[in-house]
Amino acid sequence: MRNIKLTVEYDGTLFHGWQIQDKTKRTVQGEFEKAFKKIFKKERIRLIGSGRTDSGVHALGQAANFKTKSKLELTEIIRALNANLPEDIAVVEAKEMSENFHAQYSAKSKVYRYAILNRPVRSALSRNYFYFFPSPLNVNLMRQEAEGLMGKKDFRSFMASDPAIHDEKNKTTVRIMKNISIKRASDFIHIDIEANGFLYRMVRNIVGTLLDIGSGRLPRGGIKKILALKSRTAAGRTASAKGLCLMEVKY
Amino acid sequence: MRNIKLTVEYDGTLFHGWQIQDKTKRTVQGEFEKAFKKIFKKERIRLIGSGRTDSGVHALGQAANFKTKSKLELTEIIRALNANLPEDIAVVEAKEMSENFHAQYSAKSKVYRYAILNRPVRSALSRNYFYFFPSPLNVNLMRQEAEGLMGKKDFRSFMASDPAIHDEKNKTTVRIMKNISIKRASDFIHIDIEANGFLYRMVRNIVGTLLDIGSGRLPRGGIKKILALKSRTAAGRTASAKGLCLMEVKY
Repeated sequence: MRNIKLTVEYDGTLFHGWQIQDKTKRTVQGEFEKAFKKIFKKERIRLIGSGRTDSGVHALGQAANFKTKSKLELTEIIRALNANLPEDIAVVEAKEMSENFHAQYSAKSKVYRYAILNRPVRSALSRNYFYFFPSPLNVNLMRQEAEGLMGKKDFRSFMASDPAIHDEKNKTTVRIMKNISIKRASDFIHIDIEANGFLYRMVRNIVGTLLDIGSGRLPRGGIKKILALKSRTAAGRTASAKGLCLMEVKY
Repeated sequence: MRNIKLTVEYDGTLFHGWQIQDKTKRTVQGEFEKAFKKIFKKERIRLIGSGRTDSGVHALGQAANFKTKSKLELTEIIRALNANLPEDIAVVEAKEMSENFHAQYSAKSKVYRYAILNRPVRSALSRNYFYFFPSPLNVNLMRQEAEGLMGKKDFRSFMASDPAIHDEKNKTTVRIMKNISIKRASDFIHIDIEANGFLYRMVRNIVGTLLDIGSGRLPRGGIKKILALKSRTAAGRTASAKGLCLMEVKY
């Protein structure tokens, strides 16, 4: 069996996230399943993603893999998938992998970008891709606070409980934060976050908390206290899904 | 009467352009008319745009003006319009102008940006905002050719005939091109064009011709010959509306 890795881009706006749920909900994985049926006919293909993304969350570099007996060339697989997938999903790359490669278990780290529009009036063109935050933000303070998240930490305070995972209590909530960079260019702020793994809604809860601190709703020094409390109620708001984009999965 | 200038942003994807046509077509001006009725009640407000934009064309800095007897403060006008306009239109700025200001006739120049995605595979996230052009492009050659468009020139070859204007033959097709800059950043190419005015579809016809030259479909040196022929049939293809954005109107 060949093991093929795909790099996938999608506009999350009109999806109920990555993972197939019931058939009434439009998901990225569900659209792939339909395209696979058309291309590979009788061979039943299962697509494994590096992890789920929520409703409204975008991806420029989601990774996934599938196994097939087909002899189709990689360029043909890309072409066929892009011809059969809806316009809000695109396959950017396909690569032949060794038998053991697994998009979820082989991942070493993930890079997310969170995009914020920080100005008094809302935007039309950025409405689905930037979180509109009208209050003034102290970006330097946000950078200082973010330092407190670096390295090996217990991120329990930034984890929302996930209805799909029943044994959360027994799983570790320790992750290694490898990078947080916050950049401002006129009204646009990008927060890039890389960690060896993310808990459910961790990026959005971290960003929401940084925004609360940057706008003065939560006190300076809040991040360290919130981490120490190990409780979701300690942290700030959850930032909107639409500002979030999975940029890259590293292997 | 007060004379108020608005700076307007819109996502052109779901509009039949700027200008009101019949009532069945969704237009930016038509949505403003509905919002004005809600805000200014009985006072009939007419919104004058700096010019029309086609179906699918976007704007970050379209300019418009309207006259009103209302005493509403500018910040209140912005707030009320943004509350009553659909999410794909946003009012970014409002400014009090002298009685004589006219968004169309007072304009000194317009700045458009044309955005191209130049890579082998299509994109999901950029699909409505970038023109997907998969063939390799010689951007340096495009820059050299664009030089030939600078200054005061007769742009008749780049004008599509406009069904809404009946006396086109008697109007001058001479315009002053003030700037064309072409920048590449990885797979994305931006072409910024500023002129004292634009003929119907002139930007899209110029960009289409530059793409034809950059990809080898039309010969090097083509721009000067096309200008000299003063005929639309001489020029290249019309680039898609979705890559075009009106950035600024200068007064």
